[in-house]
Amino acid sequence: MSKPLVSPVLAEFVAATAGRNMTRAAYVAVATGVGMMVLLTVDPAYQAAHHWVDAVLWACLSFFIFEWVVRLRHAFLADRGLAYAVSGRGLVDGVSAAAVPLALFLGADPQSGWLLGVFWMFKLVPGIPGLRQLRRVLVLESGPLLSVLVIFLMVLFLSSVAVHFLERDAQPVAFGSVPATLWWAVVTLTTVGYGDVVPVTPLGRVLAALVMICGLGVFGLWTGILATAFAAETRRDNFLKTWETVSKVPFFAALGPSAIADVTHMLRTMDLPSRTMIIRKGQAGDCMYFIADGEVEVDLPGKKVTLGAGAFFGEMALLGNNLRSANITTTRVSKLLVLDLVDFRMLMARHPDLAETIDVEAKRRALENK
Amino acid sequence: MSKPLVSPVLAEFVAATAGRNMTRAAYVAVATGVGMMVLLTVDPAYQAAHHWVDAVLWACLSFFIFEWVVRLRHAFLADRGLAYAVSGRGLVDGVSAAAVPLALFLGADPQSGWLLGVFWMFKLVPGIPGLRQLRRVLVLESGPLLSVLVIFLMVLFLSSVAVHFLERDAQPVAFGSVPATLWWAVVTLTTVGYGDVVPVTPLGRVLAALVMICGLGVFGLWTGILATAFAAETRRDNFLKTWETVSKVPFFAALGPSAIADVTHMLRTMDLPSRTMIIRKGQAGDCMYFIADGEVEVDLPGKKVTLGAGAFFGEMALLGNNLRSANITTTRVSKLLVLDLVDFRMLMARHPDLAETIDVEAKRRALENK
Amino acid sequence: MSKPLVSPVLAEFVAATAGRNMTRAAYVAVATGVGMMVLLTVDPAYQAAHHWVDAVLWACLSFFIFEWVVRLRHAFLADRGLAYAVSGRGLVDGVSAAAVPLALFLGADPQSGWLLGVFWMFKLVPGIPGLRQLRRVLVLESGPLLSVLVIFLMVLFLSSVAVHFLERDAQPVAFGSVPATLWWAVVTLTTVGYGDVVPVTPLGRVLAALVMICGLGVFGLWTGILATAFAAETRRDNFLKTWETVSKVPFFAALGPSAIADVTHMLRTMDLPSRTMIIRKGQAGDCMYFIADGEVEVDLPGKKVTLGAGAFFGEMALLGNNLRSANITTTRVSKLLVLDLVDFRMLMARHPDLAETIDVEAKRRALENK
Amino acid sequence: MSKPLVSPVLAEFVAATAGRNMTRAAYVAVATGVGMMVLLTVDPAYQAAHHWVDAVLWACLSFFIFEWVVRLRHAFLADRGLAYAVSGRGLVDGVSAAAVPLALFLGADPQSGWLLGVFWMFKLVPGIPGLRQLRRVLVLESGPLLSVLVIFLMVLFLSSVAVHFLERDAQPVAFGSVPATLWWAVVTLTTVGYGDVVPVTPLGRVLAALVMICGLGVFGLWTGILATAFAAETRRDNFLKTWETVSKVPFFAALGPSAIADVTHMLRTMDLPSRTMIIRKGQAGDCMYFIADGEVEVDLPGKKVTLGAGAFFGEMALLGNNLRSANITTTRVSKLLVLDLVDFRMLMARHPDLAETIDVEAKRRALENK
Repeated sequence: MSKPLVSPVLAEFVAATAGRNMTRAAYVAVATGVGMMVLLTVDPAYQAAHHWVDAVLWACLSFFIFEWVVRLRHAFLADRGLAYAVSGRGLVDGVSAAAVPLALFLGADPQSGWLLGVFWMFKLVPGIPGLRQLRRVLVLESGPLLSVLVIFLMVLFLSSVAVHFLERDAQPVAFGSVPATLWWAVVTLTTVGYGDVVPVTPLGRVLAALVMICGLGVFGLWTGILATAFAAETRRDNFLKTWETVSKVPFFAALGPSAIADVTHMLRTMDLPSRTMIIRKGQAGDCMYFIADGEVEVDLPGKKVTLGAGAFFGEMALLGNNLRSANITTTRVSKLLVLDLVDFRMLMARHPDLAETIDVEAKRRALENK
Repeated sequence: MSKPLVSPVLAEFVAATAGRNMTRAAYVAVATGVGMMVLLTVDPAYQAAHHWVDAVLWACLSFFIFEWVVRLRHAFLADRGLAYAVSGRGLVDGVSAAAVPLALFLGADPQSGWLLGVFWMFKLVPGIPGLRQLRRVLVLESGPLLSVLVIFLMVLFLSSVAVHFLERDAQPVAFGSVPATLWWAVVTLTTVGYGDVVPVTPLGRVLAALVMICGLGVFGLWTGILATAFAAETRRDNFLKTWETVSKVPFFAALGPSAIADVTHMLRTMDLPSRTMIIRKGQAGDCMYFIADGEVEVDLPGKKVTLGAGAFFGEMALLGNNLRSANITTTRVSKLLVLDLVDFRMLMARHPDLAETIDVEAKRRALENK
Repeated sequence: MSKPLVSPVLAEFVAATAGRNMTRAAYVAVATGVGMMVLLTVDPAYQAAHHWVDAVLWACLSFFIFEWVVRLRHAFLADRGLAYAVSGRGLVDGVSAAAVPLALFLGADPQSGWLLGVFWMFKLVPGIPGLRQLRRVLVLESGPLLSVLVIFLMVLFLSSVAVHFLERDAQPVAFGSVPATLWWAVVTLTTVGYGDVVPVTPLGRVLAALVMICGLGVFGLWTGILATAFAAETRRDNFLKTWETVSKVPFFAALGPSAIADVTHMLRTMDLPSRTMIIRKGQAGDCMYFIADGEVEVDLPGKKVTLGAGAFFGEMALLGNNLRSANITTTRVSKLLVLDLVDFRMLMARHPDLAETIDVEAKRRALENK
Repeated sequence: MSKPLVSPVLAEFVAATAGRNMTRAAYVAVATGVGMMVLLTVDPAYQAAHHWVDAVLWACLSFFIFEWVVRLRHAFLADRGLAYAVSGRGLVDGVSAAAVPLALFLGADPQSGWLLGVFWMFKLVPGIPGLRQLRRVLVLESGPLLSVLVIFLMVLFLSSVAVHFLERDAQPVAFGSVPATLWWAVVTLTTVGYGDVVPVTPLGRVLAALVMICGLGVFGLWTGILATAFAAETRRDNFLKTWETVSKVPFFAALGPSAIADVTHMLRTMDLPSRTMIIRKGQAGDCMYFIADGEVEVDLPGKKVTLGAGAFFGEMALLGNNLRSANITTTRVSKLLVLDLVDFRMLMARHPDLAETIDVEAKRRALENK
């Protein structure tokens, strides 16, 4: 993609930098840079360490500039330079690289200029796992959320004017103007309650009590909307993740699409690294596993059995024997489908053929291991 | 409806004012008027700008008076003058127009009189999008919400009397009477916690801790009720909005009412302005679209295809190929129905004939575009 | 049950008092008594009104004593005197009647003694509408709620000890003992945050931040449990209330029990007093009504039609014509079943015979009123 | 398992200590020890009681050391000494026994050393009833919860830097460094709002208002996630608990697995001690009971009838007669299945044969008791 510059290691690093995901170096640079930026603000005591703090900050900045340049070059080579430059990610990269030098160049003092390093944190955004899900919730529920916000603002404004009218004589400084009472209203409505500005007249306090109760109501509506939307989104996400996996497991693939959709609702995917113990002998079990991808090793007395993609295990826990009878460990990166005891009952009820297959296999194994 | 007064532009404006919805001028007047009213309260510094602030306020007020008069006249011409005058909207218009002049006429000083301009904000109420929905939630759940309110009031009262008994000797001013301790109780129960009045005796603090925990409980109940009701209301609203659209799309209209009800639960309507990009080439897709109304343009390599009402697109993303293969843009105001990947699986399972129609069309298109 | 004492009016009043429900006089007495008790605590200014405040309090107290005596006598006549005396209601009546005199007799000063009048409020408990529902939620979810409480207490305790260790040198008064820090912890964990006691050392603040985040978590769990349970309880309550009514309406009674259970989920009961307008001409409608009990009057142009129990109305709004075409008013206390537009679609889909009956009747009416 | 040491009582006690569950003595020791530890921190007034406080603390400590030694010995005899020592429970036992002596030995003053006694509280963890359920919620929802936490941290950091920039000139002490403003941000975002540090500049307050509103949002998301997950977990838990019981009751066992799964969702288990009144004559009833295990006594006029495992009672309340007609009491520890009125309707609709069996039995009983 980009020809070797100095050495293969550097070339590889440049290629990784040009790619979509954060490199580990980038995570380190963000953490270090932001940490140093915080240090810089602290006080003379830390100013003693002035020189190396500065040095580290410049190093981090250089890295972000390097990152931006490599990505710009890569994008231009692929004929989508402008697209990258104005995309969200390109803008974050650009601001991360250019904001601090620009500020310093324009004469900002270092303590203010380096504060712009906080924009480096936005580089972490694409790496937040559930962000896509949260964004979908906010987009889909933007209507109701906006109404609650408008109601919030109206209550805020009305109560500010009212409390200004009621309290301005008693407390001319704190309640003497509507902008000042807006501050009180927002602190009260959100139930933060700093207590720096508090009504003292009886009528002002009655009004404040009503505002607080409205605050609870707004809170409740907000939570209700988000809770509802989140529940739906979680179900959707889990279905999508599991569906792909389910339809690749031969055990389920024979079912029609209707049954697959049904079974998908009962399963949960689990991604495991190599050499992870899934089942520990002697523990109580309440689920069974299907191997969608990878391999596990069953540590039976006197022998080790290997199960590959398509096999299942742990079914004994669902068929009467609650304690696990062997250690089971992954031998490489594996993707499993987990079937919970509750859902196994449902499966038995709605897809008796699947249940029978599991039952027969379980009996065969029990005989074999006797 | 109303004969031309001075010029066609004015006539049109009067007609718009007489209509049901807020004109843009009204939005501007409300925002400006309220802003100036806030400015008026600030302090001598702003009093410097006294003259033009006053001028703008009087202009806004004139507009609201004009609006009221036009609407009254319009309503009387249509023989429902009284009905309008006593309706919610008529009262808001009337108060907006008359409150400030009346107050000033009755001798209120300007800083107090203009505060009544806050009633102008109520003109915005009919424009809040989810308000109808919120009102339904509050009406339907008024029973449980009221019980929680009564419980809240009882806890408030009992804890006020108890803390008065426990703290009155230690803090005769703040806890010396039940009305004073009611203030403390409401600040604590709503978890606002200003900290202006705080119990200091050990028993008073134990009581306060119990009150705080009750506060969490009240909060939880309140939220629970609102969340539950909101979830139901959202589903209902979405169903109503989508149903009308679904039954007009020929693709679905052939289904019986039972199946339409079922399909409606899976779809979501989307209103789009003209020239909006719906699908961007190369992005990952997880839904398909049915055109209920309007038209879209598919930007295929070398040709542009236009799809009208009744057509669907984006189905490839649901049939294995996750990346969108062409830009698709609306050519005029359009109403689309969105079918999510998860729901497409359900549709496939429960209405295989629909799924097949989509499948066949997808294959035809794939061949054509090869 | 009790022979006339002085006059028929008094006899009737005694009978009402002996009955299960609060008489109006009792509501007045509770409100007045508690109000006077609050007045009593206020301060010398109100002590001016000493004599009549005292008089009113003694009057209320006499009423409660009278109430208790009448009920005791009534219960003993019915041979369940002891059962009443030790029942929740009997105890509340007894304490309401005896607590204040006993306290005054034992030498409490009036300002303290009358505070016991707050127990009068418990007489309101049986009248709170949703209380039974709330109690069921608390009983059924007592397990999870208790766990959250235990976790809350453990976090409280652990953080108190830790913050005592970290802050005791910096703030020996506020954080010098674990009971003192428990106060801080409960104020922080419940997110009340008075601010009277605040950690100042860096480590103490880090700990405090963790405690606050735990507080959000506890809050969330609490709300989650209550919300879930409340949703289930609301559905149950509505089903129970509606079922009885549905099975008495001939229109639905012909259906089998399975279909009735199904239909019950779609309906909502509505109790209306006499002469209440249900439908207003010209408004948008989104539901239809079945008369379970009572009578309504349809105000058609030129004639008035009366519909009795078993009839339905408002169906046109669900069959295409969104605006109501006539005023409809109850002529006496009525119980209606409301069928929402959304649920009407479901009904149409799942019980086409019912839908057809409605459709036929709607067409007949439309013809008739042409 | 362990040979008698001194006497049978001691041997039994040692055996109980070695077992999995907390003995009553352990609960007493934890409560007493922690209580004394709290006393120790209070102040000179309590130091008067120095000697016996110390004595009790040493006694508790001895008990925990004894417990640890007994369990270690027991575990080594069973050849799993190391497994116990490094298990969660073993570590808690070890730390409970060793932390305080070690601290005192290393020269900590008693007031600090004994604070480590707070670790004794962790011995209570396995006894918290719903903990397993809560842990499952946290594990299953760790993804979304983590995203919310990351978002929380990003908002925290960005707002800290911004408020530092805006307020550092006005309040150099409280907002002079980013760590100091982080304290403000966390206090504000969690809506605790101590009020010890409050922005005073107009821009700082606008920013603070945004942070507060974000705080509500974070709160809402958090609650939404936990509420959703908790609802699912509660359903699962109830199903698991009930399933085992249902499949053992002959009345239900005849049904196929599909129907059992269906019925299980309608029932709730109830564990009752001996001699508990389940139904009180004359009360309103809204559920019926199936005896899964144990025995109840029906107190009919003139005779007592005993019902054993497999029988049902209370069905009259669901068949028209709302008031219970007899007292029913358990005669020994019993496990009942409760069928609610709502679910009885469902059962009638979906499993008419079961409903008929109940109906026939109810009629037989009604005849018999006439």
